[in-house]
Amino acid sequence: MEKQELLYEGKAKKLYQTNEPELLWVEYKDDATAFNGEKQEVLSGKGQLNNEISSLLFQMLADNGIPSHFEKKLSKTEQLVSKTDIIPLEVVVRNVVAGSLLRRTGIQEGTELDQAIVEFYYKDDELGDPLINHDHIRILQAAVPEQVEDMKAKALAVNETLQSHFQSCGLVLVDFKLEFGTKTDGTLLLADEISPDTCRLWDKKTREKFDKDVFRYGLGSLQDGYTEILKRLGGAAHD
Amino acid sequence: MEKQELLYEGKAKKLYQTNEPELLWVEYKDDATAFNGEKQEVLSGKGQLNNEISSLLFQMLADNGIPSHFEKKLSKTEQLVSKTDIIPLEVVVRNVVAGSLLRRTGIQEGTELDQAIVEFYYKDDELGDPLINHDHIRILQAAVPEQVEDMKAKALAVNETLQSHFQSCGLVLVDFKLEFGTKTDGTLLLADEISPDTCRLWDKKTREKFDKDVFRYGLGSLQDGYTEILKRLGGAAHD
Ligand SMILES: Nc1ncnc2c1ncn2[C@@H]1O[C@H](COP(=O)(O)OP(=O)(O)O)[C@@H](O)[C@H]1O
Ligand SMILES: Nc1ncnc2c1ncn2[C@@H]1O[C@H](COP(=O)(O)OP(=O)(O)O)[C@@H](O)[C@H]1O
Ligand SMILES: [Mg+2]
Ligand SMILES: [Mg+2]
Repeated sequence: MEKQELLYEGKAKKLYQTNEPELLWVEYKDDATAFNGEKQEVLSGKGQLNNEISSLLFQMLADNGIPSHFEKKLSKTEQLVSKTDIIPLEVVVRNVVAGSLLRRTGIQEGTELDQAIVEFYYKDDELGDPLINHDHIRILQAAVPEQVEDMKAKALAVNETLQSHFQSCGLVLVDFKLEFGTKTDGTLLLADEISPDTCRLWDKKTREKFDKDVFRYGLGSLQDGYTEILKRLGGAAHD
Repeated sequence: MEKQELLYEGKAKKLYQTNEPELLWVEYKDDATAFNGEKQEVLSGKGQLNNEISSLLFQMLADNGIPSHFEKKLSKTEQLVSKTDIIPLEVVVRNVVAGSLLRRTGIQEGTELDQAIVEFYYKDDELGDPLINHDHIRILQAAVPEQVEDMKAKALAVNETLQSHFQSCGLVLVDFKLEFGTKTDGTLLLADEISPDTCRLWDKKTREKFDKDVFRYGLGSLQDGYTEILKRLGGAAHD
């Protein structure tokens, strides 16, 4: 496999073309951003931790019958994935109240929901990734109704598997964000990343936060939190 | 009918108990508020204009087979309505892009939607009346799924009738907000008001704004705009 030209540089990852038109070479960066880019820092080791964790989780999902764009880990900070046409929606699943759900509903942080909820956000940095409903998705032509239902069902299936996996590692999966893309044949595929940048993960007993909220709210060292998650997942922290 | 104790004073109306337990006496006030109460003014004549317009529109809907809480106009600023248990949701219908839809989607103001869209907002001033989706409505226990579907269908039916009525008066119904309540027997009833405070109405030809946006954005005299709407609806402006 050959790494070719840079296709896109996002806030957390760089995407490169490969000699295989249907495959992308993804490089996880050390940049940490929060509040739609308002807070920004380079945190050495973050890219590696997220690449390790994301690779482990995508592999675990595949082992449980949930396919994704993940093909294989290429190096400490790189992975090979299927190329997709990303649907401009962030699909958020929530098991416990935190973050914007608290501000939106007034329900206390930490409240466990009897049933997971799903939210769709319009992936648009200029608009601040606003919450949208099915009618907005329609007028934005972001996805067709069948895709919306498909994403919701797939997101809930991912939640079932992730939740019980984290549970067995002593972690509470509070919420997480997924992105989906379509392959050239039109099929919907789970894409992007699943990492402490995109999940809220709390210690089951102490409710200590190990995810990006550590960076967002200056609660300590992001790398320590992510390393703890990787360790609990049974992954090996490099050097 | 006897006006009894004040039950509730809102930003735009006062509700009084009557000697009939199922009926409320509503008084439309002259207060204008915008941006969740940040902008505030007393605009003499506003209460009367809104009472006239709301009475006309509820009557017109009833004539077209759409019931509401409206019983009758009592005076220039007062009307009699059925008492309901208000569902804490604002149901917004939109035909043309304006206001928050522009900020949420980036679609240009004035863009006509092929099909009306419906939005639900959580009626909570402290939270700033946030947009919510069906899952949020469930966890907030604001309404059961059947009520949500019922409100959506009723809101779209109101839109059909209102839109063609305003059209025939030379006005474009850009968007509007409805509230619903349940009667003691559990049935869902259209409540609150339909007025230039809760609708965006533009001149069909010039696109001049005649509604509360005149006040929100300091575009001129609110009373002039509301008087123009009342005139076009065929209502008589008092004195
Ligand atoms: N399989 C894929 N095919 C195409 N694009 C992808 C795939 N997986 C992720 N992406 C996109 O890669 C880009 C870079 O990721 P990231 O740095 O996280 O971007 P962002 O700044 O938008 O969060 C994002 O736009 C994401 O949607
Ligand atoms: N038929 C009804 N039964 C009970 N309450 C009603 C009815 N119609 C409207 N209301 C309520 O009357 C209150 C006063 O109206 P308003 O001054 O517009 O309040 P707000 O400040 O919430 O906008 C609102 O809470 C509204 O929901
Ligand atoms: Mg990203
Ligand atoms: Mg009101």
